[in-house]
Amino acid sequence: MTSQIVPVVEAVPFVDCSPAYRSLRQSLLEDFSAKVPSHLRLAQSIIDNPPKNVTSIPRDCGILSPEEIYITEDYDVVSLANAIASKKLSAVAVATAFCNRAIIAHQLTCCLTEWFMDEAVEQARKLDEYLEEHGKPIGPLHGIPISIKLRLSIAGHWSMAGTLDTLQKADVDCQLIGILREAGAVFYCKTNQPQSMMHLESLSIWGRTLNPYNINLSSGGSSGGEAALIALRGSVFGLGTDIAGSVRSPAGYCGIFGFRPTSYVMPSKDFLGGIPGFAAELNVMGCPHLDDPQLIHTAWPSKRKGRQPNVGPLRVGFMMDDGMITPQPPVTRALMWARSHLSRSSSFHVKDFQPFETADAMKNLASAYWPDGGKSLKHHLSIKEEPLLPLTAWALKDVDDIDIGVSGILKQRGKRNQFRYDFAQHWDAQQVDIVVCPVSVGPACSHDTTFYWNYTSFWNYVDYPGVTIPTRIKTFEKGAESYISSTPLSDECIHVRKLWEEGDFEGAPIALQVIARRYHDIELFDAVKALDDVLAMGVPV
Amino acid sequence: MTSQIVPVVEAVPFVDCSPAYRSLRQSLLEDFSAKVPSHLRLAQSIIDNPPKNVTSIPRDCGILSPEEIYITEDYDVVSLANAIASKKLSAVAVATAFCNRAIIAHQLTCCLTEWFMDEAVEQARKLDEYLEEHGKPIGPLHGIPISIKLRLSIAGHWSMAGTLDTLQKADVDCQLIGILREAGAVFYCKTNQPQSMMHLESLSIWGRTLNPYNINLSSGGSSGGEAALIALRGSVFGLGTDIAGSVRSPAGYCGIFGFRPTSYVMPSKDFLGGIPGFAAELNVMGCPHLDDPQLIHTAWPSKRKGRQPNVGPLRVGFMMDDGMITPQPPVTRALMWARSHLSRSSSFHVKDFQPFETADAMKNLASAYWPDGGKSLKHHLSIKEEPLLPLTAWALKDVDDIDIGVSGILKQRGKRNQFRYDFAQHWDAQQVDIVVCPVSVGPACSHDTTFYWNYTSFWNYVDYPGVTIPTRIKTFEKGAESYISSTPLSDECIHVRKLWEEGDFEGAPIALQVIARRYHDIELFDAVKALDDVLAMGVPV
Repeated sequence: MTSQIVPVVEAVPFVDCSPAYRSLRQSLLEDFSAKVPSHLRLAQSIIDNPPKNVTSIPRDCGILSPEEIYITEDYDVVSLANAIASKKLSAVAVATAFCNRAIIAHQLTCCLTEWFMDEAVEQARKLDEYLEEHGKPIGPLHGIPISIKLRLSIAGHWSMAGTLDTLQKADVDCQLIGILREAGAVFYCKTNQPQSMMHLESLSIWGRTLNPYNINLSSGGSSGGEAALIALRGSVFGLGTDIAGSVRSPAGYCGIFGFRPTSYVMPSKDFLGGIPGFAAELNVMGCPHLDDPQLIHTAWPSKRKGRQPNVGPLRVGFMMDDGMITPQPPVTRALMWARSHLSRSSSFHVKDFQPFETADAMKNLASAYWPDGGKSLKHHLSIKEEPLLPLTAWALKDVDDIDIGVSGILKQRGKRNQFRYDFAQHWDAQQVDIVVCPVSVGPACSHDTTFYWNYTSFWNYVDYPGVTIPTRIKTFEKGAESYISSTPLSDECIHVRKLWEEGDFEGAPIALQVIARRYHDIELFDAVKALDDVLAMGVPV
Repeated sequence: MTSQIVPVVEAVPFVDCSPAYRSLRQSLLEDFSAKVPSHLRLAQSIIDNPPKNVTSIPRDCGILSPEEIYITEDYDVVSLANAIASKKLSAVAVATAFCNRAIIAHQLTCCLTEWFMDEAVEQARKLDEYLEEHGKPIGPLHGIPISIKLRLSIAGHWSMAGTLDTLQKADVDCQLIGILREAGAVFYCKTNQPQSMMHLESLSIWGRTLNPYNINLSSGGSSGGEAALIALRGSVFGLGTDIAGSVRSPAGYCGIFGFRPTSYVMPSKDFLGGIPGFAAELNVMGCPHLDDPQLIHTAWPSKRKGRQPNVGPLRVGFMMDDGMITPQPPVTRALMWARSHLSRSSSFHVKDFQPFETADAMKNLASAYWPDGGKSLKHHLSIKEEPLLPLTAWALKDVDDIDIGVSGILKQRGKRNQFRYDFAQHWDAQQVDIVVCPVSVGPACSHDTTFYWNYTSFWNYVDYPGVTIPTRIKTFEKGAESYISSTPLSDECIHVRKLWEEGDFEGAPIALQVIARRYHDIELFDAVKALDDVLAMGVPV
């Protein structure tokens, strides 16, 4: 062990801040680093001169054994659980492999806020003993390592909502973690998130999480630490939250699967709160309804009985743009590619899906997120002399200090409900089972330019569940592709086109977003499976 | 036909009001009366000298034929639907019988705000023709007359939220009515509700709805018109809404079944709004989720597949009081009677259920109902120079003009969620499947004294579904029964004891309230069936 602070790759210098903030940062990084042994530290030369794409470093850096590479690259959750249950792999070997890979991933992208291998290996050792003694796993997740977004409390570790004054060591697990722990999950790290949790660049007091495919790009947010970690195979399954796109955006930016369920389908009891707002209820990626009566316990059995099987081909509506911002070229390319592949299969009926009143939704959503105009958030930031980061300020720009009051909240909610009715009719009229659309206005943004959330937060506004599906499509080198139409849809569209011209997004992966009707989470999963079966075979263009 | 205004029994003189209000009242009553033929009008002597209990008058007044009495008294919805489908009864005969009986019920209790027999009989005639032509019913409710609370819009008829400025002739059916119409239901009347819809005495510009078992008592509210009408068998099935007890309270006061589902289990799209507030979402007694994405479409199939059957006896917790107000003597008598009957059956495991923080819930609930301190309601009342009725003023007394603001709403909602978590644990720890408790602080209250909603609104606060089960127990003559314990639980309890001493509740029926966990609506219905099977056999004490 060494108490020297673990260096991490930095694409942008850390934010300027007060002495108090700097001092707290120092102590948190020391606390973090104390547990990281020398043999898991990358050579300083890699930190100082990283390639743009760091995804091959975990495998090539020489720190991981061949078995560790195999464990972390060749399994998904289900096959890993089977391998442990059948004693092909021990829980200790699995925990060790993911812990080792996670700390490498951290040094490349600053994706973690805490790493506790000691505890994880001890937990895994007990699980191995249990399996030996009882001859069967303790639960369906026996030995599965799960990474956890900072805001979800786990006993004995740092948790934080969107501002530093909420930083605390949790006494107990939140409900969701407790359930996973009982099912046999192993916990080994917490992951980075942005200030306020209300923007898409995961920059906190611990540092800035980079995109592993191109470190000059954002990992997305607010669950950006999770996405970068999983993309580098430092985790096989992670937990985040999503009230505006905070699971789907980073999942899309980093080319992994991400799921935002319908509200109250997954447990959120005891999650650390944060900023006010209630347009979009809280959701987690992933039935505990007796302890949490908010949960809709009938909606999410893994196989719901009695549901109608789909009759005929799955009706897939492609929404190529949302009427407000044309997606940047590689996103359109990926949509056209997917559309053409699906059109060739008799299992799908592919059609257009028309967007619906996006700008109106965004406007009402802003007042739903910030009904007090951001006053409460600013107060929280002031408590620990925290700098207001540019993207936090951007998030507040349209509501700046405008408190809409009780009558404003009632009107806002009424408008939201009417919008949901109207959108349901709009969806219905187009006769689709699912919608495929962009995850974002483009591939991962350049740092500090993740301004637009419309492709994800629209679905929070109507509360429809969504999944990101990674494709094998990557963004070409700068200058190699351009917009099909030169007519911008709005001022925001002009801005996004300018960002495209200015940036270099080479190598950024493109994912697609798949959406189903509210509470149709199971139907969504069925559809994602069917789509992925076809798209995974497709040759990228 | 006659244009003379239909006289109704009045237990209390109508409220004093402005000339504009009086004039609107006059025109609404003329509009109502124009459709009521002379042969369906009761003798003026009955109106002038009614007995305290008017329940036998519909049968005895000589207006209804023996067949009409049989149709309106000997069927429930299911057997009536079967009788029409098998052509034992025609839809016209059924519609005619209920229309005739409803207008008699109205003259005795002022339960209606509109009566449109012409339209109902015409609708029924078409249904008879359909059955003749197609050999099968048009839907499961073919020919079933359904009565509708004023606030639910039905095309071509008056609808109103809580204040006169919202009075309007609806252009279209609300979603729920549309569904029922498609299923074959026949609509024939709208029913009375209170000013603001937020108190339990159904007194509106049309008049005051009386309790048919004792006209000196309230019919309850806000769905009081429905309850009085159904108690007099002028309807076999009615629709109301309940955000504080507005279905269960009148159902309990009038001795009928009433059901408040968990939020968003039943459709409420296009219902007329009214006062602000959002603690307790809207519910109706009675799955259309494609048009209304708020609906939890998986929770309410009539038989949900895959649910666990109850193992062992049903665990019934009796909550004899809520820790705040001891129920008046006949309610305690009914609870003890039910408890003793159930205890003798091996199908039930009867135990105590401890109340939980009622006063705290009531306090937070008041700010949830009136986050603006009632300002908006008062503004609406002023538009049509509507008098602020005493019970409306009472409802506002604890929040008077206090606008809690955006931060207050956020705090209130946070408190509510925490309360729901805590209460779920409290319920869980007591190991019960259902709770049996009072519907109200007593039998039906004397007019203008329905001050306390705690026994119903508590369950809105936690959003647990509830059903009222009528018993054959009636309140004894004044002075014949008294409290078991002389120790009041609170100031409110002292007030309720005083109301008991002052009032005369003779003949008022007693119902019990049965509660299940949130979203356990189906389990609740199973339990109600099991309880009613035993209690219906019990000899009243």
